[in-house]
Amino acid sequence: MILTVTLNAALDVTYHVAELRPHRTHRVREVAERAGGKGVNVARVLHALGEPVTATGLAGGTTGARIRALLTAEGVAESFVDVVGESRRTIAVADGIDATGFWEPGPRVMAREFAAFAARYRQLLAGARVVVMSGSLPPGVPAGAYADLITAAHEAGVAAILDADGEPLRLGVTARPALVKPNTAELAGFAGVPAGEVDVPAAAAALRQAGAADVVASRGAGGMVAVTGAGRWRATPPEVADGNPTGAGDAAVAALARGLRHEAPWPHRLRDAVALSTAAVHAPVAGTVDLRVYEQLRDRVAVNELD
Amino acid sequence: MILTVTLNAALDVTYHVAELRPHRTHRVREVAERAGGKGVNVARVLHALGEPVTATGLAGGTTGARIRALLTAEGVAESFVDVVGESRRTIAVADGIDATGFWEPGPRVMAREFAAFAARYRQLLAGARVVVMSGSLPPGVPAGAYADLITAAHEAGVAAILDADGEPLRLGVTARPALVKPNTAELAGFAGVPAGEVDVPAAAAALRQAGAADVVASRGAGGMVAVTGAGRWRATPPEVADGNPTGAGDAAVAALARGLRHEAPWPHRLRDAVALSTAAVHAPVAGTVDLRVYEQLRDRVAVNELD
Repeated sequence: MILTVTLNAALDVTYHVAELRPHRTHRVREVAERAGGKGVNVARVLHALGEPVTATGLAGGTTGARIRALLTAEGVAESFVDVVGESRRTIAVADGIDATGFWEPGPRVMAREFAAFAARYRQLLAGARVVVMSGSLPPGVPAGAYADLITAAHEAGVAAILDADGEPLRLGVTARPALVKPNTAELAGFAGVPAGEVDVPAAAAALRQAGAADVVASRGAGGMVAVTGAGRWRATPPEVADGNPTGAGDAAVAALARGLRHEAPWPHRLRDAVALSTAAVHAPVAGTVDLRVYEQLRDRVAVNELD
Repeated sequence: MILTVTLNAALDVTYHVAELRPHRTHRVREVAERAGGKGVNVARVLHALGEPVTATGLAGGTTGARIRALLTAEGVAESFVDVVGESRRTIAVADGIDATGFWEPGPRVMAREFAAFAARYRQLLAGARVVVMSGSLPPGVPAGAYADLITAAHEAGVAAILDADGEPLRLGVTARPALVKPNTAELAGFAGVPAGEVDVPAAAAALRQAGAADVVASRGAGGMVAVTGAGRWRATPPEVADGNPTGAGDAAVAALARGLRHEAPWPHRLRDAVALSTAAVHAPVAGTVDLRVYEQLRDRVAVNELD
């Protein structure tokens, strides 16, 4: 089983309106709701691929209950821990041109609630081969939380994948995760340079130096660069996808988690990651994948060793 | 006890952002949640005035559960009937200039759910002296719902107040409510003329002709016009209030319900209605009243008989 951790789970709400007009009232024509948060999206993609997965994390209040009910309705096994605060909502207002987003900060988590999660997490690790930790930390969770969870995964013999940003990433890598998947902005933040100026292979090597066993950097439409103990590769999609990039990184992480779980060769893992990521961009709903696109693309992704 | 009916209850959510920028993502700094819907606002004001009140209506899903929990936390007695669909949210994005609103349509209500409500409503009428029906009908509730509920109130000997618009108002008045409280736009809609051109006393008289025993028309900062079986009055606030007019009409309805309950003389009811309405505009949170402002204004409202 692959375990995904989402400490700041979300209820993703999409409103369809004819036109966004600031300082006016809009009668929303259509409302779509989905369980969200990066780890939840990873779990959804793994479930779509037929991979046994359990989603855990923190979820609170009536919004948390809704997130869990929606996950269950999708058939995704969940073992979230309740918190007193209300889980966050993200509202995306789609008006035919683009989306305008409003992201709530998430509930303040109390120390005893995070301790309850850590206990549940250790129980769940017993049945897991790989654990994926994704996304931001809600208020009240210490920045070193991922580092502690990775250490617990080591103790349980479970390989840990980290997809985080800023201080949680910086502290998390020191606990020596099996894999880190930064995007260009996160790599640049880690390297302390502007996003446009980051040397991706060099910054990925620095992440390995800091503790990550392997690093796969996602570069949007530019594909991925893997810097690993077994070699370095660049993987390039056969075409530029047109669509919604939200969730593309989560689809890539799902592919990498499955590859790690089955100990697939690196070129195979990278083809999967790029194809699934492109399939997420093609999918009409953010955070899902178009499996037909994935099947079509997967043998057409170019993987080249870096000199 | 005064009973309030809210068939399309809402969770009113306010987001505070620095600036609204279309097609960008906003990290919301502060989230405020309140139980909403016009009848719920009426119940909140009556509760603030120390008047025994019960809020009923339809509420569904996790959003409905949240609405009920928030009402209970405020100390307002509620007896909402569960529906399967999710109650609506209204999102107001406040950016320091003004608010941008997104209103969900509300859940689709099934016939058996409305029948369950009608049964609960009849039970609650047994303990009520006045019933207030306010606001829009959710999808699936027939346009004649208020008419049926008013007829049931007659059978139970309970005076009914209707605050509605369009077809629910048009059908509702035929069931002969004790009082109807339209605003200028609703009166104009009933009279079939543009809002700027409505003759308020004449349109109010037409509503009486159609079945309403008494009519109080609210004219925003212009105060109120009452056309009743006992006479006609104009009530004018001593000053123009500066603030948020959301909920001012609901505060007026609360005052009128209390006046009806205690059979207060009309000038007294109108003073109360104008003062409470102004106190709602002054209150920092939409849907609440500033009782200090109410106390200060109530003897300063001018009430004049119309010729």
